[in-house]
Parts: sequence; structure tokens; C-alpha cells
Amino acid sequence: MDVRRIRANFPILNEVTYTDNASTSLTPEPVLKVVLSYYREFNANVGRGVHRLSQVASQKYEEVRKKVAAFIGAKETEIIFTKNATEAINIVASGLRWGRGDRIVTTSLEHHSNFLPWMRLRRASVRVEVVRPRNGVLRAEDFESVVDERTKLVAITHASNALGTPSPVEEIARICEEEGALLLVDGSQSVPHMPIDVRRLGCDFLAFSGHKMLGPKGTGVLFMREELLDEVEPLLVGGGIVKEVSLNDFRLVKGCAKFEAGTPNVAGVIGLGSAVSYLRAVGMEEIRRYEVRLTEKMLDGLSSIEGVGVYASDAPLERRIGVVSFNVKNLNPHGVALILSEANIMVRSGHHCCMPLMKELGVNGTVRASLYLYNTEEEVESFLKVVEGIAGSF
Amino acid sequence: MDVRRIRANFPILNEVTYTDNASTSLTPEPVLKVVLSYYREFNANVGRGVHRLSQVASQKYEEVRKKVAAFIGAKETEIIFTKNATEAINIVASGLRWGRGDRIVTTSLEHHSNFLPWMRLRRASVRVEVVRPRNGVLRAEDFESVVDERTKLVAITHASNALGTPSPVEEIARICEEEGALLLVDGSQSVPHMPIDVRRLGCDFLAFSGHKMLGPKGTGVLFMREELLDEVEPLLVGGGIVKEVSLNDFRLVKGCAKFEAGTPNVAGVIGLGSAVSYLRAVGMEEIRRYEVRLTEKMLDGLSSIEGVGVYASDAPLERRIGVVSFNVKNLNPHGVALILSEANIMVRSGHHCCMPLMKELGVNGTVRASLYLYNTEEEVESFLKVVEGIAGSF
Repeated sequence: MDVRRIRANFPILNEVTYTDNASTSLTPEPVLKVVLSYYREFNANVGRGVHRLSQVASQKYEEVRKKVAAFIGAKETEIIFTKNATEAINIVASGLRWGRGDRIVTTSLEHHSNFLPWMRLRRASVRVEVVRPRNGVLRAEDFESVVDERTKLVAITHASNALGTPSPVEEIARICEEEGALLLVDGSQSVPHMPIDVRRLGCDFLAFSGHKMLGPKGTGVLFMREELLDEVEPLLVGGGIVKEVSLNDFRLVKGCAKFEAGTPNVAGVIGLGSAVSYLRAVGMEEIRRYEVRLTEKMLDGLSSIEGVGVYASDAPLERRIGVVSFNVKNLNPHGVALILSEANIMVRSGHHCCMPLMKELGVNGTVRASLYLYNTEEEVESFLKVVEGIAGSF
Repeated sequence: MDVRRIRANFPILNEVTYTDNASTSLTPEPVLKVVLSYYREFNANVGRGVHRLSQVASQKYEEVRKKVAAFIGAKETEIIFTKNATEAINIVASGLRWGRGDRIVTTSLEHHSNFLPWMRLRRASVRVEVVRPRNGVLRAEDFESVVDERTKLVAITHASNALGTPSPVEEIARICEEEGALLLVDGSQSVPHMPIDVRRLGCDFLAFSGHKMLGPKGTGVLFMREELLDEVEPLLVGGGIVKEVSLNDFRLVKGCAKFEAGTPNVAGVIGLGSAVSYLRAVGMEEIRRYEVRLTEKMLDGLSSIEGVGVYASDAPLERRIGVVSFNVKNLNPHGVALILSEANIMVRSGHHCCMPLMKELGVNGTVRASLYLYNTEEEVESFLKVVEGIAGSF
């Protein structure tokens, strides 16, 4: 993996060290070029026009569906484009038919986007059980006692956006299968960073963001197992998804298209296709290996600074993603992030949209560094030096 | 208005005549430049990070809220960013609290995006009344007998995307006010093309698309009158919209932010701000006058070709928008669109997401030319020549 060559595609990296990738990633020039070529050469709506520009746009748009499907081991008929992972998860939450007595199992490790949609269903008399991680890690055995035949859905993150700890999805999938529960995986933090195969994972739904994997903003994906497409109601209804409309009734089309009412983010989706090509060209195995190395350096470095506490630091390295959460003494994490920002290092601070987890950790928030393929060992070293300076000064 | 100078901002116009603007507009270079500058200079998430890039992105994002508000005479606290107008309308449909016996009044002139969300509510035992246009035009008096004290919402288009006929929104607003009904206006076809003031219109909700007004794809807006913000539930729940989350409950923030869960299309919204500036610099009055002139030429020209039937052609010109629907003899509209496409003229053909209206017109579809500020009289002349050729050949 030639990091220098990769970095040349992100001119912004000449200005800053960007380690807020768990929130959103940067976007490389080749992706921007594809987005621009859409706007300059075949700017049109998709799926509705017979004119040439619309035909070209539609074809390119649908090619991305194939590309994204191949990227996660799915069929193209199982890929729904959304505006972000939040929309993807909300489609499932609002679209499944919930009955009184149905149960949902989720965890306190979740990002709010994979927590609030389920909590809201309590109003529909659905019972929500919350599994807690141990030392920041979810254990499959903790699901065994909770998931039962009344469980309609289990919704878990593939890897914690706050702690960097991955979940034993395959084992949990087996428990779900035994009990006849559906499994939704929030892949926002995994799909951009490691090879993913939905069949191997054994999930029924996989939600992730395009903008966290080098794609344009305003893009997300929902993988939905083919057999479920008819069972889930669309969140939005409108143009482009109907077979027949009368003054009394309407019939929707079948398949993924049903979930994409209105003009989609055509430019964004086409850019996402380019992002997938970019990641595949570098190689997801390569990216994963590289990020593990950087993460190790970051973890070791932070742990050895006096006054710095790293969260979930004892989770096995080979199972971690490149997200490291820490605090410096009793300093406000936002203060630490501000000092880092003055040193041109961008990190996230606060509760990371994980308030239940923060309460369990007994903190208001943490400082979070999240790495990606364009970060370097030198950047990690500078990062550590600044944190060392902060820890030494207060 | 210097059309030549405007056209220089749309290099694609050297290649094609683009008259499918009611579906989506082209995007000028200055808007693309702003989008690129976001990706290259301050690519970050909004509202959540204290680091510099996030601060800059958040500030620019919120500036667009002010700009869009000023553009339609609203307060910035009344502007919600969505992915398209369809999402905007669905927010209202799913977010208002509907009770048994509530009524909705809509029309058979609507785009499916302003029809299906209401039809779907029938399942919640809401009664939907459908007003029909006369000769393609909605009449205020036809609402008087239908809107009553049981009517919770009236949902109408500001201008038909299929026929180009505008609705008497202000008069209908007065009827709504008398009966205590809320008024939702689909401004997708009006906001890009004429000066709009939500207070003068008297609407409670105004939905429109950013991508139809020179903005990037994946952008839409919902204006919601301030007093209603607390009454409408968000469509999506997730990150960025919560005050407090525990294992048992959550509390959402107040105001517009409640409706924007997850990472928004930051680049798109910032680009939309640039599109608004672009339109304002040209002048909405100017654009309106220019389009009326082009529309007159198009209408007169088409009407004088033997074998061409223009729909709703007797609607008064000063009240029309630049959308002209027609058929050539009994030719399939898609066939006509294909011939136009071969002559490098992009038009839409089919039902235009208006199946109920097509049934009332007694056709399967029409050919639709929709104009915008970058179209020229010369383009209209070439357009007419090609249609004349088609009419003469079959």
C-alpha cells in the first residue's frame, strides 16, 4: 500500500491531520472527478427519462448498485441507496410490521442511530431489551439468554464508533437463526475498513454510510436480504416507485426501487461507486492490515502517556478497528480536542452519539481519534507528542 | 438578464438542449466550485466536532439555512434540509398526529410525491378528498365545498409539473384559515422559477427540491411554520437530534435540528446556498419574466403545428410556468422524446409521476418540455422545427 500516492489524492492532507474518520471521511480527487463528470457531462434524473442524458445517468447509477453489491457479497437486487446510515436503519424500524409482544434486542454500545429507532418503537408496544458490553465488548453469550422466540429483530453495531471494539456478529447471527430473529448490523464503522461479506456475517440487514468510505456526503446504503423486500414498507412514498395510481389506491413496484422514492442523490451515488473502486484498488485486506498497525501504535503510545486513560484498551488488537477513545486526566475532552485542533489535528470529542455508553463508562465524553488509509505513522507520532504535551501541562 | 453569460456557466449546454428542468435542473460551475471547495478545504461533519474543519463546515451549513429562509421569506428557524421534496412531504405526512375522522384534501393534479403520502394515511383511517382541476387548472371555489372543520390538512401543488398550470394558493390559504386547516404547498415547480414569499402565500408547509433550482442532487427543503415544529414528529431518529438518551427513554432537541438526524448532505446544502445566491444575482423577477417569454414562444409554436395537441393551453399565460405538455398525433410520447433526443434535445415523456391526471386527460402520457433560465429563443425555435418534422413525417 503506497500511502504517499494515496495522500496525493487528498490535497487537504497538506493542511491538516484528519483523524475524525469515524464521523465522516475525506473524499479523494478521483471520486470528485467522477462527481464532476456527472454534473458536466450527463446531469439528469434517473429511471424516468428516455432522453440520452437520463439514459446515461440511469445506467451509471445502476452500475453502482452492482458494484456496492459485489463489495459486500450481496446481490444487486438487495442494495438500497439512502441518504445516510440513519435513514437505512429507520427504513427497517418503520418498515417492518410490528405486533404487540414483538421484541427487539439491541445494545448500549450503539450509536444513537441504531438505538433511537428501536426505542421509539416502544410506543408501538414493542419491548426493547438492551444488552450491555463488558469492558466495551459485546459477548455472544450475553445474547443467548435474551434472544428468544419472541425476538423479531436483533440490532447491533459491527464495531463501536466510540470505542473501536467489534462485535461477534457471526456468533450472534447463529443465535438469531436458532430463534428465528432477524439481524440488523450497523456496518458504518466496519464496511469502510475491512472486507465484508453479508452471507458470511449472516445478517438480514446491513446499514452503512457512503460518506464514511470516501464517498460523497448524502449517501448511505441499506442491504436487505432479498426475501425480506416484500415484508418491509418503504419509509417514503412518492415518484418513481409506483406501478399504478388511481384516485383510490396505489400499487408499488417490487424490489429495491420501492425504497427510493423521489430524485435520488444521483451524483452522490455515482461518486460512491468511484469510492468503492478506489477502496478495492487499494485492497480491503491491505487497508485493514495497515490500520491495525497504525491503531497499535496509537494505542501503545497513548497508554504509555501518564495521565491518559484509553477506553477498552484491553480488547484484543486483531479485533479492533482504528478508533481510539481516551481522556487526559480530568480535562474536558472538548478542551483537549481544541488544543489538538490548534496543532492542526482534527479529532472528535464528546459523547460520539453514544450517551448510554458514556453513562456506563461514567464520563460525559471522550476524545476520539479515528484512523483511515491516508493517515501515517508520522501523523500518529505527532498526535502522541501533542497529547503528551497536554498531559504534561495540566 | 444576460443569457449568454449564464450559459457559459453550464458547459454541458454546448452539447445538448436541456428542456427537462421540471425533473431536475443543471448545475452551474460556480455551484460546483463551492461544492469542490467544501471537499477540498473543509470536508467535515457538522454540528458535532469542535475541531476547525467541523467548525467551518457547520458555520457554512447554517449560513445556507439563513440564505434559503431569506429566499422564501421565512425565518431560518423554519428551514429543514432534506434529501429531496419527497422526503419533505413525507415528514409532514408521517409526522403530524392523525386522529380518526381527520380529513386531508388534495388534488388529482399532484405529482405522486404529493399524493401517495396522503393516500397511505387512509390506512390510519384518515379520509382523503381529491379535488379535480378544470381544464388542468385548480379553482379556489372547488375547495370551498370540500374543506371544512374536519379538514386537518390541504396539500396542493403550487404549479403542475405535468401541465405548467399554477394554483390559486393564496385564495385556498384563506379557505384553509377560515376552516382551521393546515396548508402544505408543493413548491417544487415554483420556488426555482419565481419570487416566493411563504407569508404572502399563507402556507404552513412548503416543500421543494434543491436539485431543481441549480443546486446539487440530494438536496431538498421543508419550510415548516415555527409554531408547528413541536407538533410534528421527525421521520428519522438518530444522531445529532437528541438532548438526552438513557436506556429507557430519549428527549429530542427543539426546532429544525430535530428533523435532520444523521450526517446531512453537507456538500449538497452548501452547494444549494451557492445556487440560491446565483438565482438571486440573476433576479427571480427577471427569471420569471424571461421564462414567460420563452413559454409563450413554445406554446404558440407548438399550437400552430398541425397534429400537435398542447394540454391546458388555454390557461392564461401570465399564470403559467415554463412547462409545456403535448402530444404529436397519436404517436407514443416516448417515441417523440427519442426523436428529440437524437436531435440533442432532452425532454421528458410519459406520465410525469401524475397517473391520476393522465387518466383524467385520457392519455398514457405526454411529451413535456420544461424551460429554465439558460434556455434560449433559438433553442425553442429548433425544438419547434424538430416537432414540426415529426408531425409532418407520421
